[in-house]
Amino acid sequence: MIANQVTIIGIGLIGGSVAMALKECNVVKTVKGYDIDQECLQQACQLGVIDSYSLDLEEAVHGADIIVIASPLSTSASLFKVLSRSINPGSVVTDVGSVKIPVMDVARLHLGDFITRFVPGHPIAGKEQHGVAASSAELFVGHRVILTPTTETDHDALALITMMWSMIGAEVVNLELVEHDNILAATSHLPHILAYALVDFLSTIQQSDDIFDFAAGGFADFTRIASSDPGMWRDICLLNHEQLLQITEKFRQHLGEITETIRRSDEEKLLDIFVRAKQSRDQFIQRRKQQI
Amino acid sequence: MIANQVTIIGIGLIGGSVAMALKECNVVKTVKGYDIDQECLQQACQLGVIDSYSLDLEEAVHGADIIVIASPLSTSASLFKVLSRSINPGSVVTDVGSVKIPVMDVARLHLGDFITRFVPGHPIAGKEQHGVAASSAELFVGHRVILTPTTETDHDALALITMMWSMIGAEVVNLELVEHDNILAATSHLPHILAYALVDFLSTIQQSDDIFDFAAGGFADFTRIASSDPGMWRDICLLNHEQLLQITEKFRQHLGEITETIRRSDEEKLLDIFVRAKQSRDQFIQRRKQQI
Repeated sequence: MIANQVTIIGIGLIGGSVAMALKECNVVKTVKGYDIDQECLQQACQLGVIDSYSLDLEEAVHGADIIVIASPLSTSASLFKVLSRSINPGSVVTDVGSVKIPVMDVARLHLGDFITRFVPGHPIAGKEQHGVAASSAELFVGHRVILTPTTETDHDALALITMMWSMIGAEVVNLELVEHDNILAATSHLPHILAYALVDFLSTIQQSDDIFDFAAGGFADFTRIASSDPGMWRDICLLNHEQLLQITEKFRQHLGEITETIRRSDEEKLLDIFVRAKQSRDQFIQRRKQQI
Repeated sequence: MIANQVTIIGIGLIGGSVAMALKECNVVKTVKGYDIDQECLQQACQLGVIDSYSLDLEEAVHGADIIVIASPLSTSASLFKVLSRSINPGSVVTDVGSVKIPVMDVARLHLGDFITRFVPGHPIAGKEQHGVAASSAELFVGHRVILTPTTETDHDALALITMMWSMIGAEVVNLELVEHDNILAATSHLPHILAYALVDFLSTIQQSDDIFDFAAGGFADFTRIASSDPGMWRDICLLNHEQLLQITEKFRQHLGEITETIRRSDEEKLLDIFVRAKQSRDQFIQRRKQQI
């Protein structure tokens, strides 16, 4: 055990899965939950996901060695305000947000001297289901967790959060804030935009009901991420808009080059592109299988 | 049983699965295979996928009541040439190609009076694996098969092919040639282009190895179709280029509108788009579950 009490703020899929994993791997003695939704907290207790809860944030974080923020990104500012006046000096705060520069900006604004105790983090794991009932102690096993410490971050705080994720089976990697936001814009935020855009596009064209009836398994997989939580993805897209817009514009140009190849009926070049893409994708899947 | 002998031309995933299903559902007495790859034919015989084979096309189709063309689209012209001089007057020819206007054009050019015996078809089923070893008798169960008969098509030929697919569990739907090519451009060819384009795009940006290492399950699903057969997809894209380029351009405009929404930080509109997309996608999955 590396901590007596961990408080998880926001008991959804990620918060609930962190809680379950911490308990199952004996990382912590007690997991306390905070959420604005009492029903969700009661359910989490019944399912054994958390040990106890409070609907009062100050009370919930009282005595916590580690505080994990797993609530929507839009709640960051108000949370950091409360935390700045209520956490113990020795506590360490981390988060699981999908964008890191905006979270760190808000943390710097509100945490004051406590900024040294904040370790920004992002586990690269999830499902399109949300809510505590979808939680799983194995969600992070073999998955990467990116931490984005800065020069302000205390070494012992970083070490503790690294240890926490490692003990529940994750592979911890450190990146710069901007590196994280750029990489995730490319590998996660852009695919989500494309999936949402495709489904929305198809639903706006004539006889859209018909169109979906002729879609197959490939379409189902391609659009799985369009079943993700719309509110969460609106927040991610708006908070990471700078990186996301840059990468999306570059992708639109790349797509334009491919359609130009089709327009010119350039068989050889089109085959080259498809072969190269298949190779990259097959390699990605092979490496992934080795990891997980 | 509705036929004594069916000859399948091209024993890959689709051809092999049709063969297996026809035998398993007692649709036909004998399934004969033709392919340019003898090893593949021998493997198909060993696996019990086909009953016999010939490396000579004229011999392979001799005596066949139904001929199913399941070879690459690029082989259509040369196949129809041979078929026009070697099939029995009562035989019916069908195909499984992913584009229909170009196949019908080639058929009209070469089949002469036999055009009345050709029923263009396309089963909406597949996997990203290919080859006879991936074949499954259940591949078409609950899946749609689109037939695109024209005014030239004999009624008894259409009835026979409809019966064949129905008996192996598929739901047969008739569409106009152009309807088929438009719908499939939207629901299948465009997603493939996007998946290939995204993986290719990511593999061309700096530190691409790193980038793939941070991709998660959503990315794996989104790009599954980029592991499809590059040669087959080159053929499909080039043969259906007119419909595909039109729909891709419209999609690029739609994507541009969404990025503009992000640029303007229009929270409400962005949420509307994501909610609408999620609803469409969730409905699609629900209908799909009811079908299969």
